Amino acid sequence: MTRIFFNEVVTRDGFQMEPEFVPTDAKVALIDALSDCGYAKIEATSFTSPKAIPMLRDAEEVMGRIRRVPGVEYAVLVPNLRGAERALESRADELNLVMSASETHNQANLRMTRAQSFAALGEVIRVVGGRAAINVSISTAFGCPMEGDVPASEVLQLAERFAGLGVRGITVCDTTGMAHPLQVQSLCEAVQRLLPPQVQLTLHFHNTRGMGLANVLAAVQAGIVRFDGSLGGLGGCPYAPGASGNIASEDAIHMLQAMGHDTGIDLDRLLAVAVQLPGIVGHAVPSQVAKAGPISRRHAAPRQPA
Amino acid sequence: MTRIFFNEVVTRDGFQMEPEFVPTDAKVALIDALSDCGYAKIEATSFTSPKAIPMLRDAEEVMGRIRRVPGVEYAVLVPNLRGAERALESRADELNLVMSASETHNQANLRMTRAQSFAALGEVIRVVGGRAAINVSISTAFGCPMEGDVPASEVLQLAERFAGLGVRGITVCDTTGMAHPLQVQSLCEAVQRLLPPQVQLTLHFHNTRGMGLANVLAAVQAGIVRFDGSLGGLGGCPYAPGASGNIASEDAIHMLQAMGHDTGIDLDRLLAVAVQLPGIVGHAVPSQVAKAGPISRRHAAPRQPA
Repeated sequence: MTRIFFNEVVTRDGFQMEPEFVPTDAKVALIDALSDCGYAKIEATSFTSPKAIPMLRDAEEVMGRIRRVPGVEYAVLVPNLRGAERALESRADELNLVMSASETHNQANLRMTRAQSFAALGEVIRVVGGRAAINVSISTAFGCPMEGDVPASEVLQLAERFAGLGVRGITVCDTTGMAHPLQVQSLCEAVQRLLPPQVQLTLHFHNTRGMGLANVLAAVQAGIVRFDGSLGGLGGCPYAPGASGNIASEDAIHMLQAMGHDTGIDLDRLLAVAVQLPGIVGHAVPSQVAKAGPISRRHAAPRQPA
Repeated sequence: MTRIFFNEVVTRDGFQMEPEFVPTDAKVALIDALSDCGYAKIEATSFTSPKAIPMLRDAEEVMGRIRRVPGVEYAVLVPNLRGAERALESRADELNLVMSASETHNQANLRMTRAQSFAALGEVIRVVGGRAAINVSISTAFGCPMEGDVPASEVLQLAERFAGLGVRGITVCDTTGMAHPLQVQSLCEAVQRLLPPQVQLTLHFHNTRGMGLANVLAAVQAGIVRFDGSLGGLGGCPYAPGASGNIASEDAIHMLQAMGHDTGIDLDRLLAVAVQLPGIVGHAVPSQVAKAGPISRRHAAPRQPA
């Protein structure tokens, strides 16, 4: 039995692509409900430009109104120095910085070269200077929807350079669901060999091609104990319309608990929150366990016909 | 690289729960298209009572009209002696017999005790007497939606007794998606230790709780090389409304090919068939790769704003 730590990203990564604005009250209520489920961390919102991501324009209000539960860290995504200042003012426990392992994806997504992104994020890390923990998410680490294969060496080099800047954690992200289990095993082993053991290593998977939980399994087999998940499996990708988004937190947690791992999560409580999600976003969501019930659920035998 | 063999069950297990009758022409055309994709086996239909499963009332016509591609076996589900006679008249290559490892599920589903089912299927095997290959599917092998846990010993005992009757194959079925990867590993290893090596062992998974491909991965890691799959992930379970059905053949095949295994399947051709499935059944289907495209698909980089 391994202790596995979950970071819930639904109100940030899950919501940012949603077409209809989720009211601030609903966001705060959802985060507060999730805070009672046993998560290690909740990535609550993003201090990006309100023009770029209108859904998260209420980041200050959300961070100001949520109930902080001891033992839960409240993280925020931060794209730049201005975002970092806002995050610090909002008393975020962790600032999550993002750049891509793929040059093309970084330029498409962030309008900068990778070299420019690394320099800008390095400046954020320097300015924050220990006032909050820093995590860096390396996106397209398992493949780029435009470039295709992303050499593991690119991911390893970025991870090593950020570790050298003193970040607390690195998240290796399969941004568009291109990872397969053998690749996960291989990259997880390589990153763990490379990074000092005190650097927290998190894996972020999408279920775009149905491999999400198989990749979680492969990562756990390779020794990974930290995962991002998005309630309901929210958080699609513009390159895969109609496909699933992030791995569903509740489905991944359900599987790992069934296997005997300790996720720290109260699954019944989490499922009670998960069933409310379609009402919050106004549409069905891809996750399964909230629909089917956990494997522990029993059904009555049908009455025998006479 | 392992050679992995797929049995496509969409027109039998996938279709039988569908609310709208799929016309015989569409069934024949679908099976013919699948026959060109590289499957080892196609479970085409079921010789059950037309009253019990009206969707498959055209079993004789389907078997009479499909194009038999050399190298592909055409299997049918057979519930009893009458079904076996019909199957033999239809020149089925394999008769697939079914009973449950769970007493409650067997009685609910087949209206017989397990002892009665075993005796009846034994009689079918005796009467068929080598005129067609026999496979036995043991359902609820990883758990029963009514009883809960199903002891592995029940599954092992059934498998051993059927192997003793000379069947060619045994399929171990997670009928309602209750299996988790550790359990899969454990039961796959136990069944393989028990059965003579010439008995073909197939695993049948459902994605009801999102664990389908993780279970395929665990089974492959345990040495399993034969799987049932249902195109589009069709084939729900009455105990899990709204949840996914069987594992989607194309998603499982896509994952295994990405991992370097040889499935014998032309994936591009299979995906071209899969995208037609929503039109055939009249609704969206749960599989992912037909929506998102395989991981080899490339997208154009967006044009940079000025």
